[in-house]
Amino acid sequence: MFKRLCVIGVGFMGGSFALAFRESFPNCEILGIDINPYAIDKAIQLGVIDKGSVQMNNLLLFKPDLIMLATPVGTFESIAKELSSLDLKDSLITDLGSVKGRLVYMLEEYLGENFVGGHPIAGTEKSGVENSNKDLFKGKRCILTPTQRTSPKALEKIKNMWVSLGALVEEMDPFLHDYVFGAVSHLPHAVAFALIDAIKNLSKDSVDLFKYPGGGFKDFTRIAGSDPIMWRDIFLENRENVLKAIEAFEMSLKNLKELIKSGNLQELTDYLLSAKNCREKIN
Amino acid sequence: MFKRLCVIGVGFMGGSFALAFRESFPNCEILGIDINPYAIDKAIQLGVIDKGSVQMNNLLLFKPDLIMLATPVGTFESIAKELSSLDLKDSLITDLGSVKGRLVYMLEEYLGENFVGGHPIAGTEKSGVENSNKDLFKGKRCILTPTQRTSPKALEKIKNMWVSLGALVEEMDPFLHDYVFGAVSHLPHAVAFALIDAIKNLSKDSVDLFKYPGGGFKDFTRIAGSDPIMWRDIFLENRENVLKAIEAFEMSLKNLKELIKSGNLQELTDYLLSAKNCREKIN
Repeated sequence: MFKRLCVIGVGFMGGSFALAFRESFPNCEILGIDINPYAIDKAIQLGVIDKGSVQMNNLLLFKPDLIMLATPVGTFESIAKELSSLDLKDSLITDLGSVKGRLVYMLEEYLGENFVGGHPIAGTEKSGVENSNKDLFKGKRCILTPTQRTSPKALEKIKNMWVSLGALVEEMDPFLHDYVFGAVSHLPHAVAFALIDAIKNLSKDSVDLFKYPGGGFKDFTRIAGSDPIMWRDIFLENRENVLKAIEAFEMSLKNLKELIKSGNLQELTDYLLSAKNCREKIN
Repeated sequence: MFKRLCVIGVGFMGGSFALAFRESFPNCEILGIDINPYAIDKAIQLGVIDKGSVQMNNLLLFKPDLIMLATPVGTFESIAKELSSLDLKDSLITDLGSVKGRLVYMLEEYLGENFVGGHPIAGTEKSGVENSNKDLFKGKRCILTPTQRTSPKALEKIKNMWVSLGALVEEMDPFLHDYVFGAVSHLPHAVAFALIDAIKNLSKDSVDLFKYPGGGFKDFTRIAGSDPIMWRDIFLENRENVLKAIEAFEMSLKNLKELIKSGNLQELTDYLLSAKNCREKIN
């Protein structure tokens, strides 16, 4: 049973994790660490964390049995470096990052066998601790990415912890994870951001296209409201897969464009019907 | 007050319109015309229409005071031709089509001043009369696209009809309509279909990407489940605007791809932040 949780990064994801964790482990004490003192104050006021600090080395006194990394993935290396300089051999360490792959091996270099990579497939376009949601992970998949080096005991504990929070745990190779989510999550986000950029460019002096958000546009671009720093880091950390996925998408769109241009009724129908049938597999 | 409505095309949109219309005009009689006799049978069973026919000339006996075109826009010309051969001078005629522009002028050629172009900004990815929803248009915008030729009396009646159904009526030039909805509706649909196609191509023998629909993918591609025939027709009828919008989007995506490739932190952040800010305008 966990007694002391430290959440590094007190935003929407870290805050939601703290709330969910407290519900499953009501007697635990929660320390929040963030570079932003206002986020800490807000999180304490909202009862998301019990106490907070802007200093990483306050961890030492707190002696957490679990440390959750909940910052944008671009900060992981410097945080891991800092953590590795502290004596934390009794702490399990895991994360909520949307990129795994080489990041997992890098974190292991610094943090050793007690680190277990994790990625709950949950989130919204919201950001900020004030939007935290204790039910965020319930019924959602959580991908864990153990390696040969991961302590089986640590993996077991992290797995059980997520199960307690109501998540459906699945294990995956860290690099396969990045290929899969580069396609099904990072690509759609890139596309949504680019779609908004295009609508902005297509808005003329005489017409503000953002005044006409019907026809699927609103739902479709909801995810473009996501945190820019978090997504900048995801795109860069998973650059290779994201670029490959964007290129595959560019080819698909080019094919569709050519079918529209040529007006080939049968091939255009087949293209759209095939997409519809694939989409229906995931309903 | 309307007494006899004829809906041509008894699918999701036509069925939803019939249900909504009956709620506002409970004493009206509704005739459905469709090339598919099964759709007619189902619509009668469900109480969506009172009677039906696969023959357009049954309209003559019925003497509708309102005719609603609710078929895919690619069929409009042949339907208008058929209608013009019947004596329908006492019927108002309008439509639910997602494309206006030259289609409106073509329909006027055949149908005269009693035709009023309309496009309710409502719909889902569902199709089929069995999914009809009587509340589909409530609180939704409905764009009417009168021209200089449109009878002011006909326009007034169609406007009042939509207001009775709970829609928010707005007038727009037919060609401006196609530019606007080519960008905010047709482009996102094209992108969603292409995204599914890309995910299909990125699925390898070893991994079925459609098994991982988290991370925004499901919401984002919901509209790719839309009716392929309806969308084929929209893409082709609004080809010029759709191609222009796709090209603007390709440029936006290319710019984003270059920023990810080059790893320019500041410019990438600015791009994403600007998209987020634009997106938030439409919340």
